[in-house]
Amino acid sequence: MFLHTHTPPAGALTGVWLVGARGSVATTVVAGCAALAAGLHPSTALVTETAAFAGSGLPALSSLVFGGHDTSLAPLPKRAEELAAQGVLPHRLTAAVQGELAAADARIRPGGPLPGDGRDHAELIAGFAADMEEFVRGTGVARAVVVNVASTEPVPAEGAWPASSLYAAAALKAGCAYVNFTPSAGLHHPGLAGPAAASGLPYAGRDGKTGQTLLRAVLAPMFHQRALDVRAWSGSNLLGGGDGASLADPAAAAAKNAGKERVLADSLGAVPQGEVHIDDVPALGDWKTAWDHVVFDGFLGTRMVLQTIWQGCDSALAAPLVLDLARLVARAHERGLSGPRPELGFYFKDPDGGPSALAEQYAALLAFGEKLGGTR
Amino acid sequence: MFLHTHTPPAGALTGVWLVGARGSVATTVVAGCAALAAGLHPSTALVTETAAFAGSGLPALSSLVFGGHDTSLAPLPKRAEELAAQGVLPHRLTAAVQGELAAADARIRPGGPLPGDGRDHAELIAGFAADMEEFVRGTGVARAVVVNVASTEPVPAEGAWPASSLYAAAALKAGCAYVNFTPSAGLHHPGLAGPAAASGLPYAGRDGKTGQTLLRAVLAPMFHQRALDVRAWSGSNLLGGGDGASLADPAAAAAKNAGKERVLADSLGAVPQGEVHIDDVPALGDWKTAWDHVVFDGFLGTRMVLQTIWQGCDSALAAPLVLDLARLVARAHERGLSGPRPELGFYFKDPDGGPSALAEQYAALLAFGEKLGGTR
Amino acid sequence: MFLHTHTPPAGALTGVWLVGARGSVATTVVAGCAALAAGLHPSTALVTETAAFAGSGLPALSSLVFGGHDTSLAPLPKRAEELAAQGVLPHRLTAAVQGELAAADARIRPGGPLPGDGRDHAELIAGFAADMEEFVRGTGVARAVVVNVASTEPVPAEGAWPASSLYAAAALKAGCAYVNFTPSAGLHHPGLAGPAAASGLPYAGRDGKTGQTLLRAVLAPMFHQRALDVRAWSGSNLLGGGDGASLADPAAAAAKNAGKERVLADSLGAVPQGEVHIDDVPALGDWKTAWDHVVFDGFLGTRMVLQTIWQGCDSALAAPLVLDLARLVARAHERGLSGPRPELGFYFKDPDGGPSALAEQYAALLAFGEKLGGTR
Amino acid sequence: MFLHTHTPPAGALTGVWLVGARGSVATTVVAGCAALAAGLHPSTALVTETAAFAGSGLPALSSLVFGGHDTSLAPLPKRAEELAAQGVLPHRLTAAVQGELAAADARIRPGGPLPGDGRDHAELIAGFAADMEEFVRGTGVARAVVVNVASTEPVPAEGAWPASSLYAAAALKAGCAYVNFTPSAGLHHPGLAGPAAASGLPYAGRDGKTGQTLLRAVLAPMFHQRALDVRAWSGSNLLGGGDGASLADPAAAAAKNAGKERVLADSLGAVPQGEVHIDDVPALGDWKTAWDHVVFDGFLGTRMVLQTIWQGCDSALAAPLVLDLARLVARAHERGLSGPRPELGFYFKDPDGGPSALAEQYAALLAFGEKLGGTR
Repeated sequence: MFLHTHTPPAGALTGVWLVGARGSVATTVVAGCAALAAGLHPSTALVTETAAFAGSGLPALSSLVFGGHDTSLAPLPKRAEELAAQGVLPHRLTAAVQGELAAADARIRPGGPLPGDGRDHAELIAGFAADMEEFVRGTGVARAVVVNVASTEPVPAEGAWPASSLYAAAALKAGCAYVNFTPSAGLHHPGLAGPAAASGLPYAGRDGKTGQTLLRAVLAPMFHQRALDVRAWSGSNLLGGGDGASLADPAAAAAKNAGKERVLADSLGAVPQGEVHIDDVPALGDWKTAWDHVVFDGFLGTRMVLQTIWQGCDSALAAPLVLDLARLVARAHERGLSGPRPELGFYFKDPDGGPSALAEQYAALLAFGEKLGGTR
Repeated sequence: MFLHTHTPPAGALTGVWLVGARGSVATTVVAGCAALAAGLHPSTALVTETAAFAGSGLPALSSLVFGGHDTSLAPLPKRAEELAAQGVLPHRLTAAVQGELAAADARIRPGGPLPGDGRDHAELIAGFAADMEEFVRGTGVARAVVVNVASTEPVPAEGAWPASSLYAAAALKAGCAYVNFTPSAGLHHPGLAGPAAASGLPYAGRDGKTGQTLLRAVLAPMFHQRALDVRAWSGSNLLGGGDGASLADPAAAAAKNAGKERVLADSLGAVPQGEVHIDDVPALGDWKTAWDHVVFDGFLGTRMVLQTIWQGCDSALAAPLVLDLARLVARAHERGLSGPRPELGFYFKDPDGGPSALAEQYAALLAFGEKLGGTR
Repeated sequence: MFLHTHTPPAGALTGVWLVGARGSVATTVVAGCAALAAGLHPSTALVTETAAFAGSGLPALSSLVFGGHDTSLAPLPKRAEELAAQGVLPHRLTAAVQGELAAADARIRPGGPLPGDGRDHAELIAGFAADMEEFVRGTGVARAVVVNVASTEPVPAEGAWPASSLYAAAALKAGCAYVNFTPSAGLHHPGLAGPAAASGLPYAGRDGKTGQTLLRAVLAPMFHQRALDVRAWSGSNLLGGGDGASLADPAAAAAKNAGKERVLADSLGAVPQGEVHIDDVPALGDWKTAWDHVVFDGFLGTRMVLQTIWQGCDSALAAPLVLDLARLVARAHERGLSGPRPELGFYFKDPDGGPSALAEQYAALLAFGEKLGGTR
Repeated sequence: MFLHTHTPPAGALTGVWLVGARGSVATTVVAGCAALAAGLHPSTALVTETAAFAGSGLPALSSLVFGGHDTSLAPLPKRAEELAAQGVLPHRLTAAVQGELAAADARIRPGGPLPGDGRDHAELIAGFAADMEEFVRGTGVARAVVVNVASTEPVPAEGAWPASSLYAAAALKAGCAYVNFTPSAGLHHPGLAGPAAASGLPYAGRDGKTGQTLLRAVLAPMFHQRALDVRAWSGSNLLGGGDGASLADPAAAAAKNAGKERVLADSLGAVPQGEVHIDDVPALGDWKTAWDHVVFDGFLGTRMVLQTIWQGCDSALAAPLVLDLARLVARAHERGLSGPRPELGFYFKDPDGGPSALAEQYAALLAFGEKLGGTR
C-alpha cells in the first residue's frame, strides 16, 4: 500500500532481517509498520516516533523493507489472521496490509539447522550470510539490521554453537548491524567477541524489556531512593504462545531470569530473597500476566508489601521496541558508530552496560537520539 | 536516653514543632528519632541519613527537640503503646524511649480553636506564635521548624481561615520555617502569600507522598517514556486511623485527590479517565491499602492493564519523611534560603513547582543536599 | 439459519421479549442463542444445557423467538459488529448469524417514554402490552417471557412510575411471565403487588449476579463456615459500556449496592465495614473489573486479608443467565407455576427469598429443574 | 491459670499429643487453648465452639491436656515470645499463659530419629508409644489424640519409613486416635493399612486446608455450577517460617501440590492447565501469601480471569483447625467410631473420601456433629 504513496528513493531504503520471521513478534512488526506507514493507526508505543527523535535522522517507517529466516512455513498473512483472532491485531488492519505481509513473506528464507541438516557451523553461517547479502542486493537497501526475535534457546553447553550465535555470526559476515531481542546467546558466544569487535558494526542486546522487568526498572530505584529496605522480591509469569513453552524449560528460563535479577541487584545493591517463575499457560495465547510481590522494611523495620499485576500482549509490547531498535541501530550504522551500544539499555533486560534505572536509561536514549542527528 | 550520651551544645539544637503533636505520625516521629539517635535501630527510610547527605550539614537526629500543638490530651507514651499494640512501633522500642516521649509530651500546648473558643483569628495566631516562641526560648534551640501533621481539613470556604492557616501564620510570626505535610491549606491561604514572601523564611509543602502517589510518580513517567497511551487510571484507598475518618468526608478528600491527579496530568500530558476513592475502614487501624488499575493502549491500540496494590503503615511511611523535611528545611533556614523550596518535590503530592517524575525529583533533592553543604 | 434446519412446530415456539433489545446484553443473547442452536459453539456458561436439566422440559434454544422494546434505533447486526470489534463476540460468529439478528431486529418496537411523549402511564402500559400481544400473535409462540435488560434506572421517587415498572405492568397485562435482570424497580413498584399476585404468572428477579456478588456468594459463606470474623469488605467496580455510565449516577448505584450488601449481611450475620464503588471507565468498553478487599480476624484476633480481582465481559456473563432464566420461567409458566420464584436466587443479587449462599441456591435450582420436569 | 478455676474431674480430661510440639502451630494451639479456656479471647475461627456443636459432647477446651514429641529443645514459653514479636500471638496473651505453656513444655519428649540414633524402626515405634502411654497414665486423661503438626517431609522412597509413619504407628500401638495435619505420609504408609484397620481407632487426614486450597474448595464449585470452562488455574505460594524452607524442597512440595490439585480435578471434572509454586521467603516469617490466577471461558468462549490474593498467618490459620480436629476425633473415639472419617474433609486438602466442595463438606461436618451428640 505505502509503496505507491510514499515510495522513497532506492538508496534510502533500510532492510530489517528478522530471525524468527514468522513468529508472533515478527508478524506484528511487519503488519504494524505497514499500518503506521499507511497512516492507519497512531504510532502509540513507538518511542522513535515521539518528538524527541524528530531530528535524529532515523529511517522512515515507510522506508523499512522486511525479510528474514524461519523454520516455519506458515505464511505471514495467515499468521496475522491468527493473531487477529486472538485480539492481538485489529481485524481491519490485518486485511489492509495483506500486500505488505505477502511481500515480506516472499523474502523469508529457510532457517536452521533442522534435524538431519548435515552442514557444519561454517557452512550454516555462510548459508545464512548469503541469504542476508542476497536480501540487501535484491531489495537495494542501503544497509540492513539483523534482529533476533526467535524463541528463546536453552543456555547452551560450554563451547556449543546455538542457532542464535550462528545467525549472529552470519550478520557480521554479511556486514549487517545486529540486535538480539531475546535472552539467547547471539553475539555473546565467546567465539564471536573477536569478530564482533573487528566488524566495525554496531550491535545491541539483549532480551527486550517488555513487562515485569520494565516495572522493576522503575520500582527498584523508587525503593532505593526512599531508603526502603527490600527484603524479598518474588515473581510469577504466566505466558501462553511459543515463549511460554520455551521458557517452561528451566534451562531456557535461566537465561531470562538472570536478566530479571540484574536490575534488582543493580538498583538495590543486593539481591533480595525470592524467586521468579515462568509458567507455560497455553490458554493465555499471546497474552501474559506477571505478578510481583515485594516485601520491604520501612521506618523502624515496619514490614510492608507492594504487589503488581501486569497483563499485556507479548507481541504488542515487543513489536514497537523491535522497530525502535532497528531504526536506531540502522542509523548508528549509517553514522559509523560501532560496537555495543549501552545507550540502548532502555530496551533491554540485560543491556551492554549503562545505568539500570529506567529514568537514567531514558535520558541516555534521548542523548543518543541527539547524537545520531548531529551533522556528519 | 541519648541526652546523656550525645548531648549536643545548646546552640546546636534544632526545634521541631509538630501541629498535631499527639497523632500517630507525630508519635512515630518522636519515638523513632529517639530510637535512631540512641542507635537502637538502623535508619531505614530516612533519606537524609544516606551517604549522599553526609556533607549537607543537616542537624543531627540527636540534636532535634520536639514540641507542638494538639487538641488531644492523650499523653505521647500512651499513644506509643497503642501504636505498638497495632504493630506500628516495635514493643521493645516503645519501652526504651519512654523518657523522650514524656519530655516531648511536656512541651505540647493546647491547640485550637475548640468549640466555644471566643478568640478571633488574630488572637489565635498570636497565642500559637507565643507558644512557639516560648518553645524556642525555653529549649534554647537555634531555630525551629513548624510541621503540620494534623488531620486533613475540609477544603475551606473562600475567605475562611482554617486552623492549618492559623498555625502557618503563627509560624511566620514566630520566625519559624514551615512544612505542610498534609493537603490542608496551611500557607496556601491567599491572606498568607504576602506575609510568607516577606518573612525571609523557607517553607515546603504540601501533602506527603507516602503510597499511591509515590507509585504514580514512577509509573506515570514509565508509560510516558514508552509512548504508551494511558486511557484510565482508577484508584481505591482504604485507610483506618484518623485519616480514614477525615478523608471519608468528600470535602477533605477533594484536597487530597487534587494532588494525586496532578502527578498524572503532569507526567502524561492529560488527565486520564478514572476516579480515586478514599474509604474509612477502621478495622485497618494505622494500615492502608491502595489499589490502582491502569488501562493503557499499546502498539496498534492493544488494550492492556497494570494493577498495583500497596499495603503500608501510614505512620511508618510518613514519619521518616517528616524527619527528613524538618532537617532539610532547618538547614535551609540556617543557610539563609527563603521562600518555597521546589527542590523538595520528592516528598510531596502537590509540590511548590519542580518536576513531577520521582527520578527527577530525586536528582533535584540530591543537588539541594549538595547546595546545603556548601560553605557559606 | 436454524429456522430452516430445526424449524420446530408452530405451537412449540417460545417468545423472549427483551426490554432494552438493542443493548449489549440483548445483542449477545440473540446472537449467542442463534450460534448455539446452529451448533457453532459449545454451550459454555449455559447452566440449563448441563445434564442436570435434560429432563426438565425446557424450551429448546432453537425454539426461542426474540423481540423487544428499545429507544435506540441502531440495528442489531450493527450492534453485533461493534461487540465483535471489542472482543465480546467472535468475528466469525457475528457474520454467521446476521439473518437471525436481522429477524429479531425486525420485531423490536419503539420503547419509551422519550422526552415529549404525551401519553400517561395507562396509555404507555397499554401501548407496550399491545406490542407484546402482537408479538405473541404474529410469531405464533405458545407464550412469551418479558426480560428487562435495559440500563439501570435511578431509584425512583416515592410514587413515581419508572419505565421499568411500566414495562412490567405491560407484561402482566399481556399475560407474559416476567424476569427483571436489572436492579431497577420493575415489578417491585408498590402499585404492582396486587396485579402481580392476581396475574397467575411466574416472575423472577432481580439484578443478575454476574461478578462481584457471585464471588461474595461463595466467599462470605466460607468465612462464616470457618467461624472467621469478617471486619471489613470493600469493593471497587470499574465498568465501561452503558452500565458504567448509568451506575456512575449515585442514585442508580444505590439500587445495585443494596443487592451487593444483602449477600454479606445474610451470610455473615452482620454488615461489615467497607463501601462499594462503581466507576464509569469508558475505556473498558464492555469489560469490567471488580476488586474486593476483605479484612478478617482469625484465631486470637490475628488480622488477615483476602483480595479478589474479577475481570469479565459484562455481556458474556449476563447473556447465558438471561437465556437460562427465560427458559426456566417459560417452563414454569407452562407448568402453571405462578408468583415469585425463590428457586432462582442462584441468578440474582437480590432474589425473591431463598438462601443467599451459592451452594444452597444451586441445590434449590437443581430441585426446581426436577420439579419442572415432572409429569403434569 | 484455668487449672484452678475450671479444673475438670480427672476422668474427664482429654490428651492432645502433638508431633512437632515446639513448632509455631503447636505453640499457637497450646497458648490459644489456654487463652480461650481462661476467657481471655473470643473463640474466633474455632468451628467447634459455634452453636451447631453445642450438643455434640465434645471435650471442653479447659479439659485438654497437651504433650508431644519434638527434636527441638526451645521451650514453649520462649517460642511464644518469638511468635508475639512477629505479630502472630498478642503480647499480653503470651504473658498470661506462661504457666500453661511451661506445663505443656514439661510434657514434651525427645522426637526422632536424629542423626546417629541407632534404633531400628520397631525400637523407635516402641519408644514413641511408650512416651504416649506414659503421658496418658501420668496425666490421667481418659484418652489421647496424636496430631502430626511437624514440618512436611519429602515424599519417601518406596518402602522407606518416614518419621511421620513411625509416630503414626506409635499412636496405634498406644491406642491413641490419630490426625495428620500435614501432607507427610503418616498413616498412609502401606505397612500401616492393616494395623490401622485392626486398631478400632478413628483417624483423619491429611494436610490442613488453611488458605489457597480453602479458596479453591469454594471457587472451583462456583465455576462448575455456572458451567464456566476453567482453562488454567495457576498458583504461587510465598511462605516464611519452617514450612517455606521444607516446601522449597520439590520433593516435599510434591506431596502438598497433589492435595491442591485434587480439589480442582474433583470439582471441575478435569485438571486445568497451570502449575503451583511454593517459595521459601524467610522475610515473611509466619505469614504467607497465596496468589491464584484462573483463566476461564464464558459464553461463546469469551476468555475471562479471576485472581485471588490470600495473606494469612499460617499458625493462626492452622491452630483452630487442630483444636477442632482433636476435639472431634477424641469424641469419635469416645463414641466408639473407628477408621477414616470422611466427615472431616472440611479440614483437609487431601481428605479420606467425601465431597470436595466446601459447602458439602460443611454439611457433612454438621451432620457428624449431630451424630457425635446422639445418646449412646
